[in-house]
Amino acid sequence: MAEAAKTIKNAKTAITPTRDENFPEWYQNVIKAADMAENAPVRGCMIIKPYGYAVWENIQKHFDKMIKAEEVQNAYFPLLIPMSYIAKEADHIDGFAKECAVVTHHRLAKNEKGELAADPASVLAEPLIIRPTSETIIGEAMHNWVQSYRDLPLKLNQWCNVMRWEMRPRIFLRTSEFLWQEGHNAFATADEADKDARRMLEAYREFLEDYLAIPVIPGAKTPDERFPGAIETYTVEAFMQDGKALQAATSHNLGQTFAKSSDIKYLDKDGTQKLAWTTSWGMSTRTIGGLIMTHADDDGMIMPPRVAPHQVIILPFLKDDADTPAILEFCDKIQKELRAKDISVQVDKSDARSSDKMWAAIKKGVPIRLEVGAREIAEGQLTFTRRDLGKDGKTKVSVAECVDKISEALVQMQADLYNKAKARMMAGIKDVSSLKEARDFFAGENTGGLRLDYSLIQGSEEFAKLKAEFAVTTRCLPFADGGTKVIISKAY
Amino acid sequence: MAEAAKTIKNAKTAITPTRDENFPEWYQNVIKAADMAENAPVRGCMIIKPYGYAVWENIQKHFDKMIKAEEVQNAYFPLLIPMSYIAKEADHIDGFAKECAVVTHHRLAKNEKGELAADPASVLAEPLIIRPTSETIIGEAMHNWVQSYRDLPLKLNQWCNVMRWEMRPRIFLRTSEFLWQEGHNAFATADEADKDARRMLEAYREFLEDYLAIPVIPGAKTPDERFPGAIETYTVEAFMQDGKALQAATSHNLGQTFAKSSDIKYLDKDGTQKLAWTTSWGMSTRTIGGLIMTHADDDGMIMPPRVAPHQVIILPFLKDDADTPAILEFCDKIQKELRAKDISVQVDKSDARSSDKMWAAIKKGVPIRLEVGAREIAEGQLTFTRRDLGKDGKTKVSVAECVDKISEALVQMQADLYNKAKARMMAGIKDVSSLKEARDFFAGENTGGLRLDYSLIQGSEEFAKLKAEFAVTTRCLPFADGGTKVIISKAY
Repeated sequence: MAEAAKTIKNAKTAITPTRDENFPEWYQNVIKAADMAENAPVRGCMIIKPYGYAVWENIQKHFDKMIKAEEVQNAYFPLLIPMSYIAKEADHIDGFAKECAVVTHHRLAKNEKGELAADPASVLAEPLIIRPTSETIIGEAMHNWVQSYRDLPLKLNQWCNVMRWEMRPRIFLRTSEFLWQEGHNAFATADEADKDARRMLEAYREFLEDYLAIPVIPGAKTPDERFPGAIETYTVEAFMQDGKALQAATSHNLGQTFAKSSDIKYLDKDGTQKLAWTTSWGMSTRTIGGLIMTHADDDGMIMPPRVAPHQVIILPFLKDDADTPAILEFCDKIQKELRAKDISVQVDKSDARSSDKMWAAIKKGVPIRLEVGAREIAEGQLTFTRRDLGKDGKTKVSVAECVDKISEALVQMQADLYNKAKARMMAGIKDVSSLKEARDFFAGENTGGLRLDYSLIQGSEEFAKLKAEFAVTTRCLPFADGGTKVIISKAY
Repeated sequence: MAEAAKTIKNAKTAITPTRDENFPEWYQNVIKAADMAENAPVRGCMIIKPYGYAVWENIQKHFDKMIKAEEVQNAYFPLLIPMSYIAKEADHIDGFAKECAVVTHHRLAKNEKGELAADPASVLAEPLIIRPTSETIIGEAMHNWVQSYRDLPLKLNQWCNVMRWEMRPRIFLRTSEFLWQEGHNAFATADEADKDARRMLEAYREFLEDYLAIPVIPGAKTPDERFPGAIETYTVEAFMQDGKALQAATSHNLGQTFAKSSDIKYLDKDGTQKLAWTTSWGMSTRTIGGLIMTHADDDGMIMPPRVAPHQVIILPFLKDDADTPAILEFCDKIQKELRAKDISVQVDKSDARSSDKMWAAIKKGVPIRLEVGAREIAEGQLTFTRRDLGKDGKTKVSVAECVDKISEALVQMQADLYNKAKARMMAGIKDVSSLKEARDFFAGENTGGLRLDYSLIQGSEEFAKLKAEFAVTTRCLPFADGGTKVIISKAY
């Protein structure tokens, strides 16, 4: 990332501090400048503002189509989970403590002092938990719904909010409430379940790389990093511009753990009752944090065209009032032509100054800006600018070829963003052959991933020390290395 | 509704009891037979099953398009609301008590007895409420976001879950947790706000009538039925087959109530600070209950084509194994042709018996069933059946004209369902000219709406008695009558 930042190092940047100066603060400021989200009055929670939510809507639209092609059905399960469901899980865990929101009363009323309070007369017989995830309650439903082998596979998904009380919240990345999709599938055999968990991980990889232009390393989590109860947790690990890893989505092969605790049984063709095998898989609004830290630069957000709320913004340069109607009419015409090609486009007709309009579009990361003034119309020549290329991003085109050229530029930009991020990620992951080398790397305040033989860290006390000392984590055993190598790095 | 039911009175029906025998139980059984939803293990909550959720997805898809055309922007606000926000509201209300879920702790842990419990060390300084609606928290955001007249109008919407503790829950109609959209708009002037509240009500009317085929009476609520804080509550009132009314959606002109309590101010062109004017408008999963009670019959659900999860189901009649591949291939071909016309279609390839497949499709209310067997293919003649016309619903067509005829039949069915419901609703609303007549009507155990001069019920003690005695409610002052008439009826 140092390279990328340097190119505009001495220039004035729209975002201060820059990535180099203070990455975490830069991140917050990109979000603010792009008007994507803000902290909510409830600690640890966020408000997703329209421009940020539009990205989530695009994520939903595209990924939902992909999972429906996998014959997954959407449904909706309750927000509140009885404490006894969580207790089943807690039985297996010593010193179990779960950070979650606990509902204990069902009424507010004024007390003797005339102050509003939880009405003591409304205490619930059993506390209810706001879902941190829904394995237990969906497991209960599967217990009721699955009777025969004909009912399998059963593939369910919900798009919903979940809650995990966060002590150190960071917007999008780690919030007490977040939005996600959680898929829960049940199968007749162990083999089908494992194949499915891998297939859904592949769906995430495809979605992240093809739509969000976020390159990832697919692999398996080490046993200590698995979801509680899972026999395998598969993950797609992305690497941010500061070299830290971000787990972008996970897919769990839950074996028969939840089938046992929820008693999900089916009558097989052979007339015997058998336990099902289940998987679960999730991706959240956290991904938007990954999108920002993968693509944004020191001038603000850069939206990959396929998930950009607006792919093109038309900026009318209005100076002379006499020209204004003709310029706006021209903009509307181009907008119509772009829309006819399924390109989402907005005309900024506000009365803000031209340079303010341009900088607003830059900070929001609109992939392409098209400037339209009286001179451009008179000359029949338009200039559009790709957001990701700085001063090299300008293309001059005739009015006639404008729509086609913009269309091509969007495709090219999508590919370029991915390739750039991929090259950075690959360059950032170094192979080392000893823990000594690993220690030197992290002690030198380097970031990025290290790839080493998995055997080097298994049961290693030295590695345990390294982890504790430098906040290093094991990311995954990449599929590409057949499980023999592990990637370690700092992470979000 | 008695008329509709009688036509199949002596026939065996798929749903027992019938509408005439026991409407509430019939309603529950239609939902069960169509596999749309079920009660959740948490009291008062529901699980929306895939077939029911697909209806909600269609509602979202279509209505979301309509509100985006009104330049409404989607966003997401937090689930949890600080109690102090609710306290502001409570200040104005004596004996305030609110049935809602109260979060008091943020951790579960094992107690000394080894049992799981809310950890006493995790008590929140201020209890948090699961949103029953979001005026207060969105008002706070608007306070921050609105600075100048340039920021207005501000039109926000969220699709989310909300919670209101229900003592007498009924699936879809009245559940503790439900899904909805809540729109919150802010304007510079009183006039704009009132026009907007009416425009969003008109959007609901159009959506309910054109997509759900639910005829409604748009009007204003009487002052006692307004949303707390609203200066006008506009409503679209539907009438169910049992003659009871259902409030299908509401749109509130909130005046400056919430602008005052949240301090939503803007700097106007004239350089002075002014208070904004706000509206809010919502429609929920309750609408699906209305859809069922408007259209379903004694054989189960009837889905209006525009929101049906599948508009057509193809039922292959498989008898002779040798024919099976050819029949399935033929079904796939028809499916493809229908899909090319944007018709959603499913082929039931399960190994269930043909009559079971047919009854499953009937109970689910799939608009059109197309039967395909070896004979049909040989003769080149297909028969499709409209769900809403009983035995008169069959149409014989050549293979070549099949797709066009089905396409036409779907359009016709959508119109017929609306017209039928509209005629029933209009016939069910009777004009009366005295409270005596009204009393006789309800004492005679009649259902349906009564329309009478609004002046007859204003401040009337006799009417207050009538309401209490027969659980009669004032539904609305219909726009069509210019506010001079009121409609009263029993209601959901």
